[in-house]
Amino acid sequence: MKLLSIGEFGLIEQIRRNFPEPEGVRGIGDDCAVIPQRSGLDTLVSTDMLIEGSHFLLADISPYELGWKSAAVNISDIAAMGGNPTATFLSFALPKTLPDGWVEAFMQGYADISSRYGVALLGGDTTASPDRLCINVAVLGFCPHGAAKLRSSAREGDLVCVTGTLGDSAAGLHIVLNGLDRSTSEAQYLLGRHHLPTPRVSEGLSLASCPGVHAMMDISDGIASDLRHIMEESGLGASVELCKLPLSEELKSFCALQGLDAEELAAAGGEDYELLFTMAPDARPSVPYTVIGRMTAGDELVWPGSNRDFVGFRHLI
Amino acid sequence: MKLLSIGEFGLIEQIRRNFPEPEGVRGIGDDCAVIPQRSGLDTLVSTDMLIEGSHFLLADISPYELGWKSAAVNISDIAAMGGNPTATFLSFALPKTLPDGWVEAFMQGYADISSRYGVALLGGDTTASPDRLCINVAVLGFCPHGAAKLRSSAREGDLVCVTGTLGDSAAGLHIVLNGLDRSTSEAQYLLGRHHLPTPRVSEGLSLASCPGVHAMMDISDGIASDLRHIMEESGLGASVELCKLPLSEELKSFCALQGLDAEELAAAGGEDYELLFTMAPDARPSVPYTVIGRMTAGDELVWPGSNRDFVGFRHLI
Repeated sequence: MKLLSIGEFGLIEQIRRNFPEPEGVRGIGDDCAVIPQRSGLDTLVSTDMLIEGSHFLLADISPYELGWKSAAVNISDIAAMGGNPTATFLSFALPKTLPDGWVEAFMQGYADISSRYGVALLGGDTTASPDRLCINVAVLGFCPHGAAKLRSSAREGDLVCVTGTLGDSAAGLHIVLNGLDRSTSEAQYLLGRHHLPTPRVSEGLSLASCPGVHAMMDISDGIASDLRHIMEESGLGASVELCKLPLSEELKSFCALQGLDAEELAAAGGEDYELLFTMAPDARPSVPYTVIGRMTAGDELVWPGSNRDFVGFRHLI
Repeated sequence: MKLLSIGEFGLIEQIRRNFPEPEGVRGIGDDCAVIPQRSGLDTLVSTDMLIEGSHFLLADISPYELGWKSAAVNISDIAAMGGNPTATFLSFALPKTLPDGWVEAFMQGYADISSRYGVALLGGDTTASPDRLCINVAVLGFCPHGAAKLRSSAREGDLVCVTGTLGDSAAGLHIVLNGLDRSTSEAQYLLGRHHLPTPRVSEGLSLASCPGVHAMMDISDGIASDLRHIMEESGLGASVELCKLPLSEELKSFCALQGLDAEELAAAGGEDYELLFTMAPDARPSVPYTVIGRMTAGDELVWPGSNRDFVGFRHLI
């Protein structure tokens, strides 16, 4: 859910002028909208669009993987708030040129990840496309009222933390885009991380209930880009130590062989769908995590010990 | 919301096999999904995708009109259940070739209809498209628990009724596709009905609270197609009298001049976004409506006094 990232159209200001946010509702500017219900629960909603040629190439991803990933990136938006995902709505525009069985394989991937997380498919829209495949998923979830972890809740002095390892998906994309050997165990692992991401739902729920955990979001564009959203929404800066970024053995081995910079992939590569969160130094989450930096006063993102800057992941166009 | 209409992919069966519907939830097969909340309200959700070249041509519709219509067709899905629309989520993939001011004008149309119905814009996804404009809107609404008017609730002997007039939007499309004179008052009216449809929210709310009103949906593909959904979901047939279809004076005048069959446009033309509902013969709705036929035993749609059959509206491709 990234309605904010399109500064070039001056859209944000126009939307905020024309669409006053209803009282108590958290709308644009986070992974999900947060809508209080009378029941003591908040409804979480997000939506993501994937366009052939922009977000994926049909030659590079199997229909099963694309179905999985389409649901995964949306479920991840609910995980990012510390919520429970419940249902998705799938729209797609299908070109007539899709091979036999393509849609069925797509739906199988979509169904497999949905059933793993107990997420129902409750509707959608299927239409013909003149050429490109276009997919949109809207996801619903819930959390106890007021419990959603917002990007705006970071505090100065908070530790900056991530779940899992970073950069694996970017390395998988590198394999795809450069037509590298996919048969090694490292390549298999990295491709799996790119094509079949795992939304961190249970980790998000655990973190949301841990005292001292403040801001949270999922990592879709790389921490170099995503952490800036937490900084902006919280009115803070941050300092991140490159050497602390958690790297998988597979990524290290692959990068050594290919002459790639693993830290750069971890800092600026997108689509990890791990959780990025900030917490008080004395917080004690019960899920595995890595401390990578600290929230600071000011508004800058600095990388001590490095003279580089990272801008985060960009999609194909 | 038309996940059901894509029989050629065998999608329905696969979805019903893979995605068991949660208890108490009404998912695929109606204008909206109906999700009970603990609060005594049901959440209504629908989603619609609009693709350039399939649903619209940029040369034929202004950005303001397209923005209006994108929100309108979704708000209409909530109206079709007898619900209150509350919020939308707008995804679009924008080609770089859009003229300056296009997005702003689109958002103005979207904002104007949203504020007319008190609907908030709570999020979305904005992305680049390699070529075609692609729009997806998801809409949320609510109604009292159990009050949503379903397609499956029609009863044998019910009167078949519609709000407003039919065929105006199809005539507007005819003007667009054939490059006819747009300057006459009739053309202006018909184009307005095509490009700036009015969701029947207050009518839907009123009908939903009227005793004896049973099934309801909105007319997006023409009654010849849409009434079949009520028939299928309710396990009934229907008989519709062509001569009873409500026609606007503008449509009659335009069709007389152009040598078009107004009844055919009214029966098979799409995008009227009026409400189609069935009710007990002694029901007394307080909104204006026209009785056009009756629900019957069996599974056939018949047009007494006519030897024609109608298949309903198809989009551009």
